[in-house]
Amino acid sequence: MKPIGPIPPAFADQEGTLMIAGRAAEAWVAAHGSPVFVYDFALVRAQVERFRAAMPAGVRLHYAVKANPYAPLVRATAPLVDGLDVASAGELAEVLAYKHGAAISFAGPGKRDAELEAAVRAGVTLNVESEGEARRAVAIGERTGIAPRLAVRVNPDLELRGSGMKMGGRASPFGVDAERVPALVREIVASGAEWRGLHIFAGSQALDSDALIETQAATVALAARLAEESGRVPPMVNLGGGFGIPHFAGDTPVDVARIGSALSGVLDARGALLGDTVFAIELGRWLVGEAGVYLTRVVDRKESRGETFLVVDGGLHHQLAASGNFGTVVRRNYPVAVAGQMGAPANDAVSVVGCLCTPLDRLADRVVLPRAEVGDVVAIFIAGAYGLTASPSAFLGHPAPAEVLAGAS
Amino acid sequence: MKPIGPIPPAFADQEGTLMIAGRAAEAWVAAHGSPVFVYDFALVRAQVERFRAAMPAGVRLHYAVKANPYAPLVRATAPLVDGLDVASAGELAEVLAYKHGAAISFAGPGKRDAELEAAVRAGVTLNVESEGEARRAVAIGERTGIAPRLAVRVNPDLELRGSGMKMGGRASPFGVDAERVPALVREIVASGAEWRGLHIFAGSQALDSDALIETQAATVALAARLAEESGRVPPMVNLGGGFGIPHFAGDTPVDVARIGSALSGVLDARGALLGDTVFAIELGRWLVGEAGVYLTRVVDRKESRGETFLVVDGGLHHQLAASGNFGTVVRRNYPVAVAGQMGAPANDAVSVVGCLCTPLDRLADRVVLPRAEVGDVVAIFIAGAYGLTASPSAFLGHPAPAEVLAGAS
Repeated sequence: MKPIGPIPPAFADQEGTLMIAGRAAEAWVAAHGSPVFVYDFALVRAQVERFRAAMPAGVRLHYAVKANPYAPLVRATAPLVDGLDVASAGELAEVLAYKHGAAISFAGPGKRDAELEAAVRAGVTLNVESEGEARRAVAIGERTGIAPRLAVRVNPDLELRGSGMKMGGRASPFGVDAERVPALVREIVASGAEWRGLHIFAGSQALDSDALIETQAATVALAARLAEESGRVPPMVNLGGGFGIPHFAGDTPVDVARIGSALSGVLDARGALLGDTVFAIELGRWLVGEAGVYLTRVVDRKESRGETFLVVDGGLHHQLAASGNFGTVVRRNYPVAVAGQMGAPANDAVSVVGCLCTPLDRLADRVVLPRAEVGDVVAIFIAGAYGLTASPSAFLGHPAPAEVLAGAS
Repeated sequence: MKPIGPIPPAFADQEGTLMIAGRAAEAWVAAHGSPVFVYDFALVRAQVERFRAAMPAGVRLHYAVKANPYAPLVRATAPLVDGLDVASAGELAEVLAYKHGAAISFAGPGKRDAELEAAVRAGVTLNVESEGEARRAVAIGERTGIAPRLAVRVNPDLELRGSGMKMGGRASPFGVDAERVPALVREIVASGAEWRGLHIFAGSQALDSDALIETQAATVALAARLAEESGRVPPMVNLGGGFGIPHFAGDTPVDVARIGSALSGVLDARGALLGDTVFAIELGRWLVGEAGVYLTRVVDRKESRGETFLVVDGGLHHQLAASGNFGTVVRRNYPVAVAGQMGAPANDAVSVVGCLCTPLDRLADRVVLPRAEVGDVVAIFIAGAYGLTASPSAFLGHPAPAEVLAGAS
């Protein structure tokens, strides 16, 4: 049998019926159907507070909308954070209802002219990913008569050790190689665009606090070096994010207090050149991932050649990452539980499979759970980030699941 | 650098501009926007004809709708095939417009009662995946007063060697273990349900013709054994599919003529017990995969640390499998071409990356192509099956791509 990932702290010590935002899992399913994503907003708020308590005063918190663009969640989160980061014109159109353009930034390779223009018109900061993109944005500024707000996304010559996805230190489609950034900064300033600063994103989903501390320090140092080499002070430096959350057995959470304390020291010592620079940290998964639970009902319980399968009415069409098919090399189990039997003895060896007619649709592979019968509800945790929108929801033509935000006001 | 997969025969020998269904790739993009999926129906028709020419008379051809449920494609394909296989109530609702219920079968684990009832009411054959599901279907038949049409999906005690996805020969969420099938068949017949036969699916995406021949022979033998042990002749035996198509360098097509010839021998020798049984082969990918081309425009061409990236306006949100994130262990390149330069010398080492802000979004990894500039169109082949609906199309909020069926009438 294989281990399951750690159940997030808000749910780990529950006994009996799984409660989410004060309501039983079965009640959520009864009210909204199965499968359903339930997001407990109190947990998002708690993460924001944890961040604020740990980080130096003045460090801004941005929400990376791509982690979960569910509109009620974004609307509720927007007032708690200092900025929203979007990755497409679609996300931009959504968030303009919740945040002023000046507090929104737009990163991502392959921005089309129409996307650049939407951002320029909305007064959004464009994190430009290449010299070519910068020039297209400047041209759009000239054509529209609106000075574009431009920051340069940097492909740093450092990488975030232990990050789930490395995004720096190598050839990359993201950002401009650090050594070419000073020339581009000068070109942007000379163009008459509004110079907004630097976006330096070295990796994501890292659980090694020391690596995060080291990377933040190196990122601030890189920003200082680029400021000096370009002769232009960045009004803002987006330090990226990279704070991971535990998904798999053996994972442990990042120590935000320690990271904040180290960053405080780094910023205190940053020198005059970056004295007026505002720093931001951009988080998606860390803010919302653990707030979400995916609930799905057991439709069949079947034996085959000595193994037991719980067939549920959800599947990889809503939970691609949990099925091990999105960005993971080795398939490992997300945290999973039988919602009616939290804390009960686990003595039933099963695999939890989805309702799709493909062997890929396996949500938990050979795990030991309390015994579940047909009709019982299974909970897959860490469903708050990169869940529904990061899954092939149209695959095999099943209905869309409900999403519910609880506790937002 | 890494190899790319073989361009399908209909496109491989083209020179100059890529033509799809008699129209230039750039014209398709100009007419429908970028990115766009273009399906050339003449290629689907040719596959159907290839199947008919190769297979013994009387062997039925079913289309597995999940491979591509695009409505105009299903509508055009339905009259050419003998049956449609669906995997959800959503697919069922779609195809009832094109095919009588008696020519539709519904397979898949985790069918809910509402799905079973929809199938019973439509007179669709249910390939039941477990004893429990069979009993639920029988109960629905009693409640509605309509005898359900039931076939048993068998988890065979054999597997398709070399198949991309193994679905037999082991513990499986699909079907009923062969050794338990006779008892279930007798139970179904005794219940008053309409007994429809057996569905035996041993694997998919196999390119080894010998393995397919061997598996078909073993499947017919298994059907005969189950008929004898159950004392009930199956009116139909669905032999599954499993015919693969080349995706990666070194892949070669299956030899349908040889498979058909071998199956002919097997069926001629099948003995009296299966003398009146109708045989069907169920194909998805093989019928429609090569008919589709995904066209996407280059938005940026950028250098980073000695590598060149073509950033396109498509990505893994439409082409998850081509990005290596769906069911593949080792990432390999799908066939890809610069649409305006078919047959031109390849001397530009590039990676083709999508517009999503994630390192996973790579459509071609370190390949050598003719030189492409911003504005050029890149073609990803084998986009006719498991493309758009098998991808996380909502990820990052980009607009839906167009789909076009060409040459259908």
